[in-house]
Amino acid sequence: MAASHVRPGSQNGVSRSLPEETPVAMVYDGTSHAVMMATPADIQDFAAGFSLTEGFVTGLEDIASCEVIAHDLGIEARMWLRGDRAQALAARRRNMIGPVGCGLCGIDSLEEASRALPDLRDRGPSLSVSQVALATDSLRDWQPFHDRTRAVHAAGFLIPGRGVVLAREDVGRHNALDKLIGAMARQDMDAERGAIVLTSRVSVEMVQKCAMAGCAILIAVSAPTLHALRIADAAGITVAAFARGEGFDLFTHPERLKAEVSHVA
Amino acid sequence: MAASHVRPGSQNGVSRSLPEETPVAMVYDGTSHAVMMATPADIQDFAAGFSLTEGFVTGLEDIASCEVIAHDLGIEARMWLRGDRAQALAARRRNMIGPVGCGLCGIDSLEEASRALPDLRDRGPSLSVSQVALATDSLRDWQPFHDRTRAVHAAGFLIPGRGVVLAREDVGRHNALDKLIGAMARQDMDAERGAIVLTSRVSVEMVQKCAMAGCAILIAVSAPTLHALRIADAAGITVAAFARGEGFDLFTHPERLKAEVSHVA
Repeated sequence: MAASHVRPGSQNGVSRSLPEETPVAMVYDGTSHAVMMATPADIQDFAAGFSLTEGFVTGLEDIASCEVIAHDLGIEARMWLRGDRAQALAARRRNMIGPVGCGLCGIDSLEEASRALPDLRDRGPSLSVSQVALATDSLRDWQPFHDRTRAVHAAGFLIPGRGVVLAREDVGRHNALDKLIGAMARQDMDAERGAIVLTSRVSVEMVQKCAMAGCAILIAVSAPTLHALRIADAAGITVAAFARGEGFDLFTHPERLKAEVSHVA
Repeated sequence: MAASHVRPGSQNGVSRSLPEETPVAMVYDGTSHAVMMATPADIQDFAAGFSLTEGFVTGLEDIASCEVIAHDLGIEARMWLRGDRAQALAARRRNMIGPVGCGLCGIDSLEEASRALPDLRDRGPSLSVSQVALATDSLRDWQPFHDRTRAVHAAGFLIPGRGVVLAREDVGRHNALDKLIGAMARQDMDAERGAIVLTSRVSVEMVQKCAMAGCAILIAVSAPTLHALRIADAAGITVAAFARGEGFDLFTHPERLKAEVSHVA
């Protein structure tokens, strides 16, 4: 779409590349579970990652098939789950349907929002200070879409000594992380061997997804929220934030960091 | 929470102010409809705005009561709707429950995502080039929480000639906009008289909320998505983005802009 540039000294006709965004429906066993606005790419990764981080499946073997169908109005990821998983999801849907809890309040749905997470306390690798500090620089090489639009988020997987080895981009930061986690599972990468690196903030949902993927280290460019840090602390996840080349702030589980004297002020 | 600052030259013990985030449940007539992770402030505004932008009510008079209750796990906005609205929402819930559509695909839920919006073509004020260009500067005066944390979004309402007259902040950009729209309704401000100003990107949901509030002009610091622009174009909404003091890009419905020759390159 053409824009008028109302900017002294700007070149007329310079066209900016804008990101696309489309509704993506996650459909399980013939029933639509959620619709997200997302970048229309890597939908197989997205479907796999969403299924894993929502806890609908515990591994890709639980997804019998996943077909991606483009409609005029958006994209559908049409999945069929294996028998017991299909039954578990149908039961979960029935629970979501009726009047929630006592029928007078939202306590049950607040409990649902603070769901149990895996304990990653004794898992995950160690990282050196410079590996953490340079993580977001390493992610920059994996952001072609951001380079064109300056408007999408990225999530990458870093393996100590190798830098970022895989990344996905999306207009939504939750989607970028789900796509990464799905791509890792589809490429049989063990989340426990490395760290997840984000261009975005660290909110509760980002920590929950990281925990569900089994990754014990989260490195982010921007700020964490206090509640995200409480959840990361309880789940045994190391959170380093404000990570921008020249350093970072370390908030939880510092035991995974190997000190390098020359880098610590 | 205390952080270790791993940053050459940084002061040890400098503590950064981090934003809080808590689950907020929107409960209608005893049934929880949605839980959002949000900044725990302005919950009455949030409940009013969410109800309006989701189309559950057409005005605050449809909400018979709204009680805000703090639980250990989060905050509940407990609303009771007036008779016909309560019945409409209950019917909508029943529709969401059954197998969606033909039972084999997600087309119905994709249609739901592209819902009908009010037509704002002949509504809304005119703005001068400098009023648009200075809008995000004017919003800066309304961001005390951002000044402390550098990690929250803001949404403000600008009236031509008066600058930003009201704003709300939240860790989530959708929540900030819902809180603003709720606050405007509670203060009886006519959305048609001004423009909504955002610190964030313009995605589909932001345009939908703006349209539901009856505001015909959206000014944002960051990029729009292509699909957001299509929806804004169809709804008659003017979108100016990349608006940062020195100018902006104008994407849709430029007829609301009054040219000032000295400012156009």
